[in-house]
Amino acid sequence: MARLKGFQKLVPVDEALKRFLSAIEFKPKELSVPTHLALNRVLAQNIKADSDLPRTDRSAVDGYAIDAKETLETSQSRPSIFELTSLEALGKGQAKQVWTGNPLPRRANAVAMLENTKIVGNRVEVWSPTTPWENVSRRGEDVREGETAIEAGARFRPQHLGLAVALGVCEAKVFEKPRIAILATGNELAEFGAKLRGSQIFDSNRLVLSALCSELGAETVDLGIAKDEVGEIRLRLRSGLEKADAVITSGGTSVGAPDLVPEAINELGKPGVIVHGVAMRPGMPTALAIVKMKPIIVLPGNPAAAMLGFEVFGRPLVSKMLGLNHVEPRPALKAKMTRSIAITLGRKNLVRVKVFQKGDEFLAEPISARGSGLLSTMTKSNGYVVAPENRDGLELGEIVSVNMFDNWEVMNQDVQKDTVT
Amino acid sequence: MARLKGFQKLVPVDEALKRFLSAIEFKPKELSVPTHLALNRVLAQNIKADSDLPRTDRSAVDGYAIDAKETLETSQSRPSIFELTSLEALGKGQAKQVWTGNPLPRRANAVAMLENTKIVGNRVEVWSPTTPWENVSRRGEDVREGETAIEAGARFRPQHLGLAVALGVCEAKVFEKPRIAILATGNELAEFGAKLRGSQIFDSNRLVLSALCSELGAETVDLGIAKDEVGEIRLRLRSGLEKADAVITSGGTSVGAPDLVPEAINELGKPGVIVHGVAMRPGMPTALAIVKMKPIIVLPGNPAAAMLGFEVFGRPLVSKMLGLNHVEPRPALKAKMTRSIAITLGRKNLVRVKVFQKGDEFLAEPISARGSGLLSTMTKSNGYVVAPENRDGLELGEIVSVNMFDNWEVMNQDVQKDTVT
Repeated sequence: MARLKGFQKLVPVDEALKRFLSAIEFKPKELSVPTHLALNRVLAQNIKADSDLPRTDRSAVDGYAIDAKETLETSQSRPSIFELTSLEALGKGQAKQVWTGNPLPRRANAVAMLENTKIVGNRVEVWSPTTPWENVSRRGEDVREGETAIEAGARFRPQHLGLAVALGVCEAKVFEKPRIAILATGNELAEFGAKLRGSQIFDSNRLVLSALCSELGAETVDLGIAKDEVGEIRLRLRSGLEKADAVITSGGTSVGAPDLVPEAINELGKPGVIVHGVAMRPGMPTALAIVKMKPIIVLPGNPAAAMLGFEVFGRPLVSKMLGLNHVEPRPALKAKMTRSIAITLGRKNLVRVKVFQKGDEFLAEPISARGSGLLSTMTKSNGYVVAPENRDGLELGEIVSVNMFDNWEVMNQDVQKDTVT
Repeated sequence: MARLKGFQKLVPVDEALKRFLSAIEFKPKELSVPTHLALNRVLAQNIKADSDLPRTDRSAVDGYAIDAKETLETSQSRPSIFELTSLEALGKGQAKQVWTGNPLPRRANAVAMLENTKIVGNRVEVWSPTTPWENVSRRGEDVREGETAIEAGARFRPQHLGLAVALGVCEAKVFEKPRIAILATGNELAEFGAKLRGSQIFDSNRLVLSALCSELGAETVDLGIAKDEVGEIRLRLRSGLEKADAVITSGGTSVGAPDLVPEAINELGKPGVIVHGVAMRPGMPTALAIVKMKPIIVLPGNPAAAMLGFEVFGRPLVSKMLGLNHVEPRPALKAKMTRSIAITLGRKNLVRVKVFQKGDEFLAEPISARGSGLLSTMTKSNGYVVAPENRDGLELGEIVSVNMFDNWEVMNQDVQKDTVT
């Protein structure tokens, strides 16, 4: 068959990805940034605690710091009575008022909660026995000196910033952001904002791919739109390889006449295209290449296939180039299919679904397979199911795992509601 | 009891939030931004399609555009034969080669896929019957002219940008970013990077709260650290109310001696504090206030309580001020408790858990209730369960819904794996 000539053997997704990633030797450089500017950066070195946290035993409540053994005989009918002190150390029979977070005075080993005490003149009655270290945050309870508080390869989320700052870490070694160049190809494409002529359409892939890259934390370089001419494509690709650490293209990768991107790549250097034609749907004509040690992902022009192709190949690539110790995942949840759908046996099918909650259950409604290339399927769905090659359909009632896009609001209108029912 | 004097009646979370949000009349202003700069902005006006998308009938495959009825008698033993044309309209018995995305020539209503055809000289044999509109993306199939493609109040995710650009929308009306001022209070707090003296600790809350606000898309204003003096707190709060649309503080809200923030607020204007003491854990001493029409959230100084208090009150507030038509949710999933834990009856308990996958199941391991104020509980957990007021524990094996923080990698190491099993 004419069509399959170029794709006599579709490469399974897992194999294609493995072949691609194992051929990439990119190691991001390290740089120091002030911790307060490190949100979402990827940590290049472990952050170790250079002291205990808390640094001292501290009160965990508002109350009176005491020696617990002096409350041994305390009962609801017989309070223990302490003399109040404001010194840094307790004498026998003394108590010191503390607020949550205050360090304990010396010789104190417990805090009687305010609500179990009563002030009488310059004394305090404690109406409940305490045990050693009751209501105390022990030194090192949060993080121990020498402990790895945050691991290299992790992303600095707000809570990590907080922990680093609490540990007194002012500068963090993070990885430099990789630069990803984005190219669209196709005679039919018009630049966003231009006036459409004839059957032109606006290029949307560059913007979507660039947004996906920058959300992961990469810098992007815009290579514009190339006409379906191998010379122009080669020129723009070469510029991308000079300016950036990787290139992602869309369009120009069918095996028909406009199959020009793989051709241009192979003219640019070795090893060139290492995978062309992947056993997935959508996204079959995807190609993966390496030129001058730099990775290139060639995605189809179909907007949905380009975005889903990015999910499958772009996310792992960018995650690796960011220095992450994991592939940055989409949030995943389990949902029940609302109806059965047919899928293509022998391919990894990326099935767009709309997840919503009904009662206590998450349901996944497949978005019509017809028009699988349509952009609106990406805004009407809120996630996708990755169905393996040995399946020719998903069943009504089947529990699937859904990788979620970010528009959670369509399924989860009210985060304030209790999450236990 | 001394302690409860100031909190004689803890306000239930839902009521506190409702009272707070309904007192806020803030409406963000609209502004126009170029669509390609609108990532994550909140849309202020519906985006309506001013033309069909696709704008014309287009081929959905590589192949030959034909009139379907001319293949009525086609079979595997008897192909239909078409004369090739390169014109914009088909004559009788003619076919035109098209690539995916090409517009159909006039009088064509179907495309024969390349693999079902064979070129013989200047003719093409079609070996399979086609039905009308087979392999054609119909005009308007993606979006119909006049249809609302993206709704006001939605956040521009990458896929929304793509759809807007494809529709030729160059400028989008979005909401201005609200400005949130952040203040920390406490004599024990040292500025990040300073040298600690005595029992000082580094303030981490400002950075965490500011990161959470800016991730939602708000601007932040740093009000620094105030000593536990009502005059200084009032001064900084006043400056925050001048510079920003809302203020969030941490610390200085117990009912003991350092309970100074609510006092300072009430000196600044009416109505002042409208809620003080919320039936939640952690976060009980949280206060909510309005001064000069501007909202103020007073969170505890305990870092975990401050962050979880932001989840409960800050997220809905900032979502509303962003102009979102929903409260920006955390991703939520269902998981099974790995052990039972006791919680406080009569409070809404925010139980930190670590979710991980075992086989085909998500499990939720509660993070030790002891040391609930510890910062590391926020980095060791990856989500929280909101347990309602009528529960005094969560049970082993119970299915809970978990609001997930963003460190999904701990539970979901490999996004590439198939999500159907």
